[in-house]
Amino acid sequence: MLLLHRAVVLRLQQACRYEITVTLQCAGNRRSEMTQVKEVKGLEWRTGAISTARWAGARLCDVLAQAGHQLCETEAHVCFEGLDSDPTGTAYGASIPLARAMDPEAEVLLAYEMNGQPLPRDHGFPVRVVVPGVVGARHVKWLGRVSVQPEESYSHWQRRDYKGFSPSVDWETVDFDSAPSIQELPVQSAITEPRDGETVESGEVTIKGYAWSGGGRAVIRVDVSLDGGLTWQVAKLDGEEQRPRKAWAWRLWQLKAPVPAGQKELNIVCKAVDDGYNVQPDTVAPIWNLRGVLSNAWHRVHVYVSP
Amino acid sequence: MLLLHRAVVLRLQQACRYEITVTLQCAGNRRSEMTQVKEVKGLEWRTGAISTARWAGARLCDVLAQAGHQLCETEAHVCFEGLDSDPTGTAYGASIPLARAMDPEAEVLLAYEMNGQPLPRDHGFPVRVVVPGVVGARHVKWLGRVSVQPEESYSHWQRRDYKGFSPSVDWETVDFDSAPSIQELPVQSAITEPRDGETVESGEVTIKGYAWSGGGRAVIRVDVSLDGGLTWQVAKLDGEEQRPRKAWAWRLWQLKAPVPAGQKELNIVCKAVDDGYNVQPDTVAPIWNLRGVLSNAWHRVHVYVSP
Repeated sequence: MLLLHRAVVLRLQQACRYEITVTLQCAGNRRSEMTQVKEVKGLEWRTGAISTARWAGARLCDVLAQAGHQLCETEAHVCFEGLDSDPTGTAYGASIPLARAMDPEAEVLLAYEMNGQPLPRDHGFPVRVVVPGVVGARHVKWLGRVSVQPEESYSHWQRRDYKGFSPSVDWETVDFDSAPSIQELPVQSAITEPRDGETVESGEVTIKGYAWSGGGRAVIRVDVSLDGGLTWQVAKLDGEEQRPRKAWAWRLWQLKAPVPAGQKELNIVCKAVDDGYNVQPDTVAPIWNLRGVLSNAWHRVHVYVSP
Repeated sequence: MLLLHRAVVLRLQQACRYEITVTLQCAGNRRSEMTQVKEVKGLEWRTGAISTARWAGARLCDVLAQAGHQLCETEAHVCFEGLDSDPTGTAYGASIPLARAMDPEAEVLLAYEMNGQPLPRDHGFPVRVVVPGVVGARHVKWLGRVSVQPEESYSHWQRRDYKGFSPSVDWETVDFDSAPSIQELPVQSAITEPRDGETVESGEVTIKGYAWSGGGRAVIRVDVSLDGGLTWQVAKLDGEEQRPRKAWAWRLWQLKAPVPAGQKELNIVCKAVDDGYNVQPDTVAPIWNLRGVLSNAWHRVHVYVSP
């Protein structure tokens, strides 16, 4: 077991600073769309429970190696505990498989900087975990303890939350042990402009959004529809392709498209494809789950066209 | 560059035999469902362009290491050529990234045995490539040459085929350079029993099928619907969970479900979820593409209930 002391972090800060751009997404991003199908438990996130920053810190694989750990065949997990605790005195906790933690290419960080500044308090000062390509819930803030264990963290948030279930499962029938904890997230995209209910000019409309996928899978294409999904146009991806490195950051995208003459309303839809050719599902109901996580159906925005 | 001589293979056969169970899927599996949306070019595969076998051979990473190759930061590719050639004298060819080829955990094989027997002629005797989790097109049969190159294979099948496009792209507008070659495949499942159009007994129906995902991602759940996707039941996965190892083989599954009283027909649907929580899309049209590849929408079977 390894205890994280500030002194260790400072030594690592001098020894092997590592910097990467990583998108973090909450498992509950776009949960509000699931609520429209049927009630779920959780904060009503729309499309904003996702963000991207430049993180600097020590690689967890280096820290674990200095502590004498090696990757072996047996299943093990790296457990994290935050210094924040709830009213019962329980600290926030989560874990990731040791294989990911020890993989230099997985680039798991103990981060002490965000966008070139010391980590802000709200983002986990002095040190937080950053696990590229993995659900936000494992990026433990205000890190107080790191340990290698034979089992996943026994934390509520590892074992009794942040798991996906069939739409048929409700709070009476749910068996949390039957589903794996969410680690890598599926391919995701959303429209950020125009906003739902907005009025756009006739002539030409500019549509903007983000797209991202878990596990370092790069977004290779975003399709956009103005007619609810009957016909599609390919959006332009901003920024540079990240291959052959893993793609940890979102791609912003845009499409300028003529508004079909005489159209009074548009049903704008987007869907992304990642480099494993995974796609987003068409609709929300068949992926509905009682906690409203993993909401990655096509994103839809309804707008009016000014006459 | 490394030439593959039978002598080399025989030496490796004695030195480091390696055996794994791997599912191979053609990019065009379930292409016939895309044809129903709009014409595509390719063989009319239904759900049978997928199979699973036990493969034994030498690991490609060991062969490359013996030939002096190392994994470095620069992008490189391992190109394969078959001994089969078309009427113009061109050999079948394909490539995979060097990073995958050199990764011991990716378990890429130069296979000389299938199900405990020497590789049958139809399956690539004397040696074929097996690339777990990757589209069948890269598992080159009758292997004649292996080389490490700075670029992907210039083969037609690497550069002018086996790529995914938006449904809006047709043979007039297609730009093959705009899409990456298919490597890992997306999550897939299909119903193998009952067959479409069959009549089933009233009382109880048994539904069987397969589910698989690319990249070693394990199938964690299969949802089955008897009402076209309105309500879902969770199928029982056969066999054992393959974690923490990569999941290279399909999971067969089944569901025994009561037939709702008075029902004359059933619209049976299945969809799988992998451990990246990727799901299958609801419908075929939005993933339609001119070559009819990557057809992984929910699988649907319509049956009659005997009175």
